Formats: sequence, C-alpha cells, structure tokens
Amino acid sequence: MVGSTMAEDLAADENFEVTVADRDRVALERVAGRARLHTLCADLGDLAALRELAAGHDIVLGAMPSHMGLQTLRAVIEAKRSYVDISFMAEDPLVLSELARAGGVTAIVDCGVAPGTSNMAAGWASTQLRPFRRLEVYVAGLPVVRRWPFQYKAPFAPADVIEEYVRPARIVSGGRVVVRPALSDPELLDFPGVGTLEAFNTDGLRSLVHTMPAPDMIEKTMRYPGHVELMRVLRETGLFSETAIAVGGQAVVPREVAAALLFPGWTYDVGEADLTVLRVVAEGDRDGSPVRMQWDLLDRYDASTETRSMSRTTGFPATIMARFVADGRFAEPGVHPPETVGARAGLFEAMLTELSARGVAFTYDERPIPSGLTP
Amino acid sequence: MVGSTMAEDLAADENFEVTVADRDRVALERVAGRARLHTLCADLGDLAALRELAAGHDIVLGAMPSHMGLQTLRAVIEAKRSYVDISFMAEDPLVLSELARAGGVTAIVDCGVAPGTSNMAAGWASTQLRPFRRLEVYVAGLPVVRRWPFQYKAPFAPADVIEEYVRPARIVSGGRVVVRPALSDPELLDFPGVGTLEAFNTDGLRSLVHTMPAPDMIEKTMRYPGHVELMRVLRETGLFSETAIAVGGQAVVPREVAAALLFPGWTYDVGEADLTVLRVVAEGDRDGSPVRMQWDLLDRYDASTETRSMSRTTGFPATIMARFVADGRFAEPGVHPPETVGARAGLFEAMLTELSARGVAFTYDERPIPSGLTP
Repeated sequence: MVGSTMAEDLAADENFEVTVADRDRVALERVAGRARLHTLCADLGDLAALRELAAGHDIVLGAMPSHMGLQTLRAVIEAKRSYVDISFMAEDPLVLSELARAGGVTAIVDCGVAPGTSNMAAGWASTQLRPFRRLEVYVAGLPVVRRWPFQYKAPFAPADVIEEYVRPARIVSGGRVVVRPALSDPELLDFPGVGTLEAFNTDGLRSLVHTMPAPDMIEKTMRYPGHVELMRVLRETGLFSETAIAVGGQAVVPREVAAALLFPGWTYDVGEADLTVLRVVAEGDRDGSPVRMQWDLLDRYDASTETRSMSRTTGFPATIMARFVADGRFAEPGVHPPETVGARAGLFEAMLTELSARGVAFTYDERPIPSGLTP
Repeated sequence: MVGSTMAEDLAADENFEVTVADRDRVALERVAGRARLHTLCADLGDLAALRELAAGHDIVLGAMPSHMGLQTLRAVIEAKRSYVDISFMAEDPLVLSELARAGGVTAIVDCGVAPGTSNMAAGWASTQLRPFRRLEVYVAGLPVVRRWPFQYKAPFAPADVIEEYVRPARIVSGGRVVVRPALSDPELLDFPGVGTLEAFNTDGLRSLVHTMPAPDMIEKTMRYPGHVELMRVLRETGLFSETAIAVGGQAVVPREVAAALLFPGWTYDVGEADLTVLRVVAEGDRDGSPVRMQWDLLDRYDASTETRSMSRTTGFPATIMARFVADGRFAEPGVHPPETVGARAGLFEAMLTELSARGVAFTYDERPIPSGLTP
C-alpha cells in the first residue's frame, strides 16, 4: 500500500535509481507499470539474501510487516547501508543504535506520518520551548464515505488495527510514564472539513516517551464517533481474544473469527477515497511566555495518481528523509527516531516544504496561552 | 425455568395430583424438594412413551424446547388428553385443530405472557370494539441490574433470543400482513418504575394475524436502550449467520461463536432479580365512540419464593388456563389460541383475578380517543 508510493516518488527523481523488492510478483508488476524502476522478486525474510541485496544499493527504505521490522533493520545495518524505515515494530529499534554507530550506519525509524512527521514536530518544538510542558498527537486515517456500523476501513494491515484496540497505551503524565487501557479516555474533537472525530489513547508515543522532556504527553488515534464504543463492545464480548474457545467441538480463536467477519468490510475499494488527519500540539514557554504551537494536516486521496492519502502521508516523509540522508543533511551514525532529525535546524521546515510540494500541506498556528490557563 | 413454577403452582392446589416429567434428574430433584408432586425421569422425545405418559393423566401442560413443540402437541392429542402449552414453536399449531376436534381434545397453545395473556386481552377487546381498529403488544423480560454493554440476560433459551434478532416479523398494516425485518422500527417508550425501553418488531402476533379483525396490529419486544443497536451491529457483522465460514482452516458457524461468547454473560445469576413488562393497547369504537383500552403489567422477581418474574408471568397463565379446562369453563374441542378463550365472557377477567392472586397484577385504563386523533 505504501511501498509502491515510496518507490514511485523516488523513481521520479533523476538523482535516484530505484529497485523494489517484494515476494509478490503481481505487486511488482503493478509498480513497474507506473514508474521507471527495477523490480526484484525476493523473500525478504531470507536475511542473508537481504543483506546482499542491501549491499548492492546506497540507501534502503523499509516498509515491512511488523513481525519483520526489527530483523530487517538489523540486516541492513549489518550490510552497512543507510536505512529509512516506516515499518511498525513492537520492539524498540533503538537497541540497535550501538550496532549502527559502530558500523557508521545512519538509520531513521518510525518515519511515517505519526509516528513520523509528528515526531519531527515534537523534536522541533523541543528546541523552541523552555520548558516544553505538553505534547498532544492526534492522528486518523479514515474513509471519506462513512458506512454504518463501523464507518471505518483499514489503511494498513487490519490485524494491526485490532492491536490498537487491545494493546495498552503508554502516555506521560506529571513526568511519569502511565499505562492506560486501549480505547481509553475517548474525547470528541472537531476538524474543519472533516467534522467531529473521536480520539482514544493508542501506544504511539514510542520513542517520544524517553526523548522528549515534556512532563505531559498523549498520543491518540481517531475514528468517526461511534466506532470506539463498538470496538469496546466487541472487545468486552471477547471477540478480540487470542485464547481459543470451544465451538461445536473445535478450538476456535475469537480474534480470527473477528478478522474473517470484519476485515472484508474494512478493505478499501479500488479508487475509494480516504483522508488523513494529523494534529500536533506543543505547549511551553518561548522566551518566557507560554505559547501553544499547533500543526494541522488534512490530506485526501489523490484521484489523479490514484494514491491513497495514507500512502502519501506515510510514504513521502520516508522518501524525503531518504534525500536528507542521501545529500548528507542528516548523516549521524546510529538508529534515530524522527524527533532527532526534527531538532536539527532547518530539517523539519525542509520536510514540510517538500511534503507541501507533494500536496501534503500542513498548517501551522502559534498563539499565546492566556496566563490563567498556564499550569 | 418455567416448568417448575407451573408444577409448584398446581401442586399447591389440593384439586390436583401433579407429575413432572423431564430428562434432567437434577431439575426433577430440585422441584421435588419444593412441592408435593411426583417426578418421572423420561425422554419426552420418545413419542410412544410420551403418549403413554399423557394417557395416564387428565391434563397435560407443555413447556418444551421449540423444536419439540409441535410433536408434543400431536402426541398429547393422539393420547386424547387436554393440553395447555407454553412451548414456542416455529410451526402453526392450529394445523392440528381438526385432529383435536375429531378426538374431542381441548388444547390451548401459546399460553404464556405474550403470546398468552396478551392474546386473551386482544380476544376480549375484539368482543368490545366495533370496529376493532388497532392492536399493540409490547413485552419485555429484563434483568433489574443493567450491565454494559448489553444490559440484558435471557429469561429463556438464549438461542431463541438470537432468533428474535434475525427472524422477520409479521405485522398487520392497513388490513394486510406485512413482513418487517427483525430489529426494525425501534421506538422509545417510558414505563413507570422501569424507565425508558426500546421496542422493536418481533414475530409475536402469530395467531392474532388471522384471528383478529383489526387492520393494524404490531407486536414488539423491548430492551433497555442501546441493546437493539448492538444487536443490529452484530447481525450486520455476520456474527448471527448460520452459514459456516473458514477460520484458521476450519469451518466455523459464526452464530455458534456468538453463542459461546455472549450466552455466559446473558445467564441470570442465582437469585438475580428480573422484571417483566407487558403493555397491550386496543383501539376501536365502543358504542360508537373511539376508545383506547390499555392493560399494563410490571412484575418483579419474587425473592420470597426465589421465582423469576418471567417464570411467574409465563407459567401462571398456563396453570390458570389448566383450571379453566379442568373445571369445564373452557371445554371446546380443537387447538385454540388464547384469544379464543379471552373472547368468552368472564374468562379474561377470571384470568386477571387469578394472576393478581399470585401477585401478577395488571392495571387497566380505558379512555376516549379525542376525535382529532381518530383515523
């Protein structure tokens, strides 16, 4: 879904020669028909082959299933090649930072929309605010057409969507890491052009929990109102459980039944329009005065290129980051989260400029916080 | 759940000698400990044995699972014994009326709360109203304590509850039988002492569709608000489907998964309080003036006898009807719905008196319909 968008963006740049590797021949033929690039049908779970493949190129971009995320990062580092990654992984990728530093490899992970551009915004804010008091990240990838009852389609692997509904979320409150239940703290927010969305805690702060000094940080995913309650009901009913139950004399895993019943309806139709909403709020003092910095993104399906918004907003940050690495604007060895890049002078601004050139346009608003509202 | 209440009520009457037959020895021992009666452990699916058992008694009361309803009725008729039945059956029991008449057997079916007392009210109303314009029946059996998300427990076989959520409902509109989807036409109604309930079409008119002259008739089941929407969602998701789907290489019937996940939470705890709400509205002209006749019942769990309200409101109409048959107040051969009995002078009033003596107290209200509201 996203890899082909990344490949096309880089292939359209005469500075790059692009090879796309995947085990799916049909997917390779589809992208080869749309862009000037090489394709290679390969099992990327074969780590020796992966290292060899990486060694034959200057920069590697990763868009892997979550269970292959960490092993791919390690293989590319071992091949001593730069890496820009959008793969979700449950593990902490920064554990490989020492290996990367030792090999002189620059790797940037979590480099999509959120985590991704949201981290860069936080990194930039951390250079502007003394103290940095509060960070809020709200993100949504949604279908434009809302159909009862779930009003939802999955812009990435639907199994990872259900993970969002069961995995506890780490937030930061009063300077401490607090674990909140999945689907907790629902709140309604209005977005111009979209309407009211319902936000709930998800485990998306990731590296920010440790890299940012703000004592209060939340990350929330959003859905159209109503979806969250239904997911809470299905979870309560046991339908998201991975523990097998006896049904008609067989052992059946409820979550697999949920997947079989839900996912067909959660799949985007060909050409179906989606949208991405991202809001990042950073609060703190700038030059002694409390301010609220706010970035907003509303991005929509691109009918002219038939590219889904979630593919654009997730893929372009990675291809732009790859250019930062290619031209040396960010060349520090190690495994880095995007906030490290965002904290470097000019790079978050350059990211926003390049995204805007691709139609992914953030707005920025900064305003003083009335003193009565300051903590 | 209901059979033991029926047996206890009859056993407490010195005019009767009672035998309870069931295949469940534990259930038999439980009821034997509570009342002066005989028990017989028997497979009532063995129709020859059933006929023999029936022949040894004067009157038979039936409280059978739905799939055994019709065959039990037939066996009792063949044994030439009177029968009072509360079993739900998908089939039309009146097809056996000719057989009953030929054998001189009096059988009254659907003799619970609704269908049951509601039919008797309709039958009585049909003798009072010329024309009889409209009949409305609203019924609910609910737990007193409402727990998120379903706020529901099943007072009878939960598989039959799910049937209510999928089986289309026949209503009568403008003099024609109209089939409406299950869970359709939800409406909110307030009941003193209970609060707001949500009513939806169920297929409970049954014989009334054909026996009553009213051109507009509805029957609705009620739940606490919110339940209906969740059932619509689960149905839409496919969880009530009886068609097997492939899950992890196995064929799995979604409704069996739903049963395994939902029913444990839908089971009343020992001693848990329930309530029954019934409202019957009949509209038409009495002596040339439009009137609205309305019967209301709010019945609650009886802690002193540890008897669930649904068992009381369903079981007592049958035991009272059995007395009508025993003392000859209703002795017409054939298979009869309760409205036929209710139309006989004095019998619906006698039913209400006897129910009230058992603490199941209806209220009755009759008021003129302002002429502006008359069709």
